[in-house]
Amino acid sequence: MYSFKNDYSEGAHPNILKALVESNMNQEDGYGNDIHSKNAIIKIKELMGNQNADVHLISGGTQTNLIAIGAFLRPHEACISVDTGHIAVNETGAIEYTGHKIITVKSKDGKLNTDKIQEVLDFHTNEHRVKPRLVYISNPTELGTIYTKEELKTLSKFCKSNELILYADGARLGCAISLKEADISLCDMCEFTDAFFIGGTKNGALLGEALVIKREDLKREFRYHIKQKGGLLAKGRLLGIQFEELFKDNLYFELARHANEMAKLLTMGLIEANCKLLIDSPTNQVFPILENEVIKRLEKNFGFYIWSKVDDKHSAIRLVTSWATRKEAVTEFIKELRK
Amino acid sequence: MYSFKNDYSEGAHPNILKALVESNMNQEDGYGNDIHSKNAIIKIKELMGNQNADVHLISGGTQTNLIAIGAFLRPHEACISVDTGHIAVNETGAIEYTGHKIITVKSKDGKLNTDKIQEVLDFHTNEHRVKPRLVYISNPTELGTIYTKEELKTLSKFCKSNELILYADGARLGCAISLKEADISLCDMCEFTDAFFIGGTKNGALLGEALVIKREDLKREFRYHIKQKGGLLAKGRLLGIQFEELFKDNLYFELARHANEMAKLLTMGLIEANCKLLIDSPTNQVFPILENEVIKRLEKNFGFYIWSKVDDKHSAIRLVTSWATRKEAVTEFIKELRK
Amino acid sequence: MYSFKNDYSEGAHPNILKALVESNMNQEDGYGNDIHSKNAIIKIKELMGNQNADVHLISGGTQTNLIAIGAFLRPHEACISVDTGHIAVNETGAIEYTGHKIITVKSKDGKLNTDKIQEVLDFHTNEHRVKPRLVYISNPTELGTIYTKEELKTLSKFCKSNELILYADGARLGCAISLKEADISLCDMCEFTDAFFIGGTKNGALLGEALVIKREDLKREFRYHIKQKGGLLAKGRLLGIQFEELFKDNLYFELARHANEMAKLLTMGLIEANCKLLIDSPTNQVFPILENEVIKRLEKNFGFYIWSKVDDKHSAIRLVTSWATRKEAVTEFIKELRK
Amino acid sequence: MYSFKNDYSEGAHPNILKALVESNMNQEDGYGNDIHSKNAIIKIKELMGNQNADVHLISGGTQTNLIAIGAFLRPHEACISVDTGHIAVNETGAIEYTGHKIITVKSKDGKLNTDKIQEVLDFHTNEHRVKPRLVYISNPTELGTIYTKEELKTLSKFCKSNELILYADGARLGCAISLKEADISLCDMCEFTDAFFIGGTKNGALLGEALVIKREDLKREFRYHIKQKGGLLAKGRLLGIQFEELFKDNLYFELARHANEMAKLLTMGLIEANCKLLIDSPTNQVFPILENEVIKRLEKNFGFYIWSKVDDKHSAIRLVTSWATRKEAVTEFIKELRK
Repeated sequence: MYSFKNDYSEGAHPNILKALVESNMNQEDGYGNDIHSKNAIIKIKELMGNQNADVHLISGGTQTNLIAIGAFLRPHEACISVDTGHIAVNETGAIEYTGHKIITVKSKDGKLNTDKIQEVLDFHTNEHRVKPRLVYISNPTELGTIYTKEELKTLSKFCKSNELILYADGARLGCAISLKEADISLCDMCEFTDAFFIGGTKNGALLGEALVIKREDLKREFRYHIKQKGGLLAKGRLLGIQFEELFKDNLYFELARHANEMAKLLTMGLIEANCKLLIDSPTNQVFPILENEVIKRLEKNFGFYIWSKVDDKHSAIRLVTSWATRKEAVTEFIKELRK
Repeated sequence: MYSFKNDYSEGAHPNILKALVESNMNQEDGYGNDIHSKNAIIKIKELMGNQNADVHLISGGTQTNLIAIGAFLRPHEACISVDTGHIAVNETGAIEYTGHKIITVKSKDGKLNTDKIQEVLDFHTNEHRVKPRLVYISNPTELGTIYTKEELKTLSKFCKSNELILYADGARLGCAISLKEADISLCDMCEFTDAFFIGGTKNGALLGEALVIKREDLKREFRYHIKQKGGLLAKGRLLGIQFEELFKDNLYFELARHANEMAKLLTMGLIEANCKLLIDSPTNQVFPILENEVIKRLEKNFGFYIWSKVDDKHSAIRLVTSWATRKEAVTEFIKELRK
Repeated sequence: MYSFKNDYSEGAHPNILKALVESNMNQEDGYGNDIHSKNAIIKIKELMGNQNADVHLISGGTQTNLIAIGAFLRPHEACISVDTGHIAVNETGAIEYTGHKIITVKSKDGKLNTDKIQEVLDFHTNEHRVKPRLVYISNPTELGTIYTKEELKTLSKFCKSNELILYADGARLGCAISLKEADISLCDMCEFTDAFFIGGTKNGALLGEALVIKREDLKREFRYHIKQKGGLLAKGRLLGIQFEELFKDNLYFELARHANEMAKLLTMGLIEANCKLLIDSPTNQVFPILENEVIKRLEKNFGFYIWSKVDDKHSAIRLVTSWATRKEAVTEFIKELRK
Repeated sequence: MYSFKNDYSEGAHPNILKALVESNMNQEDGYGNDIHSKNAIIKIKELMGNQNADVHLISGGTQTNLIAIGAFLRPHEACISVDTGHIAVNETGAIEYTGHKIITVKSKDGKLNTDKIQEVLDFHTNEHRVKPRLVYISNPTELGTIYTKEELKTLSKFCKSNELILYADGARLGCAISLKEADISLCDMCEFTDAFFIGGTKNGALLGEALVIKREDLKREFRYHIKQKGGLLAKGRLLGIQFEELFKDNLYFELARHANEMAKLLTMGLIEANCKLLIDSPTNQVFPILENEVIKRLEKNFGFYIWSKVDDKHSAIRLVTSWATRKEAVTEFIKELRK
């Protein structure tokens, strides 16, 4: 049984484990004040070409989202997200628990644009309604699609002129910035957003996301918020060591590139097998539409989630590749499918 | 420079790292549904002699406290804690952030008793004041003292008859239940509390606490609360593997015993050197009162925190030992002190 | 200038003011423990035919919603509401501030049904999503439509079998239960919901809503929640006296009947003048679609809100009648319209 | 039976009722946009000699405290209050429900000073503890004592230089600023605090407090916060009319002066009868220490609360006078006492 369920089925990239072992008995200060966290943060600032941004290493994606959004907003302010946004559907109301409404707008491809944001602004004009204040995007989106540089630039400009905070969830950011045909870099993410995070968990780390805060007024006393939400690990070295390794010799980008390539291989195999895709995703999530009977057959040897019902006989499934996906597994899957 | 600052200066016990490496490329389900988490939980239940308790593996202490207390209480209910309680002073208002007041009572040795709880109950009698509902104790306390079985039994009985939830923070629980002269076991902790946690981070793990919920009405839909607060790790295996190792062949207890022994060695050395102690602590935190000049001298070669001012010339410092403390470091410290 | 903007443009029904004056210098206990509040509650229980329900008098609608929903739900639980629901759009995120998500479903007539609820349940099946727990309906709805007894019964049954709490916002309840052609009484509201409130502010009181809690497990320590959210008035007599008067000699029902009749008069006049209506509302809110030029002309002498754009030349406006609406004002409005 | 339980046993001053009756059928805009609220706010600004301050009319004291403090603080920030502060003990954890810790300091006379605040600042120095940010004082305090102008000035200066917000609860403010021997005016309150409120409920209104926000950065979008917490009354006119009347011809000050005079009469009678007082309070709360047997006798004809046990035979009781207290009642009480 081989699993395409997600990009966190395996442990960590071997380099990370090696570094953990080698540094294990060194004494380090706690709570992110260790040398590894410091080094990792320096490296990330270098790669973004921004020395003024603040970087914080936090355990997971939901944790990062709730700490950041909870810290950025005043009580009456709200988020805008597409209806498939991770914070909107898959975080058990974590953002609402911090007291903030998520205003959702419909989107077919998981992407947000300025027209949709403008509609929300037009509807929320006085104190009887929440004040829209933070625009949440995911890059890649929950459907595997990505934003072009031009799209990010447009969103950025719109948010600035409307006093909105632009925040990007980068749980799978590696796959967006490592895509050959894409034109987005880590520098662009930093330039065009007010804050965003660089996902580690889904790209080879045991756990860990690097939250980048560029905008000055959002930085203040941020470590208080991490601690208050239980996000400040005593052994912060665990996060530091991992990001140190991930950003050594471009490992982070290579791992993401592999995930993308495996996804491309899958996609090509599916197309050759005359499968339709629910959505055209260039990153590590692939959504083929298959006959229910075929799905049942595939489930015997492969793990994956059924994404949505398409019609009485067909459903879309989700196949996720990662840094750890073996090429043979992809070939096997396509072979099994074509039977 | 050798650090006695805390019990999380080093990485993890080598067995844990070994297990991480060996299991690394196995595919596992996410969010705590992996085989390692399941095994660890089975083992913990066995050791507690209670198959009905629920066990959840969570990243850290503050995280565990805020998830548990936030889930257990209704909005108008409050905690009772001693004024030195971790939730009261060292968690950046994490519990208040979940909406609940912490009513503090004075205590010299960090311990709570039924008289103090009764006083709180007597003061809070109607809807203009919060409703005291959860009794928070730490074992060992933040001052290194521990509860006897008799004391726990008395608290337990009192809480039951007053419809109070008894919850124990066990960030350093290992040191309490591994103490030779103590009479408390893991079984007792489970029997006498409604919920408690078994600390991993401060006893050899990279991170991780095992929350035990015994009381039936507190168990319901608990995973929702973990997820909502960002505490459900995608790679839950990381927690599972660690607790699996910690509870294999009594490793957890041995590590704690070592920490206690190193503390005892320190204490004996201090006493022989005619040092007074701020408090008589049998576990891995030692609080000698030293001349400020001596402290300055020691700081050149040893790391530790100054705990409190005693008089113009003296202060108490805190020395923490752990599973990783080297005997030579203790000897060196005492030697340096006696100079 | 005559205002049809809302049903709270005037002060209180004269009987209420008279009672306030007459009882003014009597000394009463505070916080709802006065004789008037007690009498009002007894009367309300009588009218509902339910002596076991709890009744609490609270200042306003948003206040009542946030206290009730905040008290009824555990942190991970969510509300289901139509997208036009008052809690969803017009309470500045008050419910989200208590920590709970509102899951909205589309509805043309402002009403919820079991199919829509079932869809929500089907989507929310594990701990990565919120747990739908409370069904919020308004009766009349924000669009003036009402639920039939059969519809309420069906909702009630569905909620019971799915462990959902059925909660009804009755800010304009008088208009629903006083409608000649309707078949819903105060008894039915109590029978078919778990909790609901009887609006005073929009039916002749200066302020005040009577919250009814029928379901046993929702009643516990409820006054704590009212106090905690700042809803327990020191001079609770102000609420008591008003509900005492409103439920004396059927005043409450007569006032609502008048509001409905004035709305009917308006509707008939509009239809005779060949106006289309945005929605067929039998209660005190009327939504005619008018030419923008006509609207501009009417605005010179009448106050009302523009509800929505219909096309480039037409908009729907909202006209609200109340206990205080003068028949002449309605006649004038129609006359002005027909010019 | 005559009640000295509190200052909200009666309804409203007759002028207020008269104004309610006279304006009753005028149509007004809702939510505080009525002419009466506007007039009242203009008048209050005049009396404070500050045209730039914002004034908001809100229903009650707990409501005002929780809205203001909830709006002023970021999630990790905390309040400092004396241990007898209203927010600390008598608001059912309303402030904690907004997510903020209240750090309490001991005080015998209910007053705060800069030494006590400094101690709190010294203890809270990093992100593991909350950030003290708002200093809460009551004037008069919950024990009836008041701040001198010099004391307020000192607090003000200290708070400014430590970036603390100085906020004053003025539930009984009238009694402080109407005291002959006091040197505090409404202007001083505005000058020396960042925000404070002028209590109406306890000085002749049915309900209502006027919140004054002087500090610029605390003003922004404040009406959103009022609405979100359910504090924006649809018929805001009810609050407007009352404050209009209270500040017409110095009525507010006269009512408070009467309350103070009745308290002085009581105090003098008590002293003449050789009663000791628990605390020397110059305002409308008097705390005589009486034999328990005497208390029992007095309870037959007078209502009051027992404040605290003094010794086995004596307790302190609390007697509250108000604008409505009849001189004869005071005389009667003293007569009864002397029997």
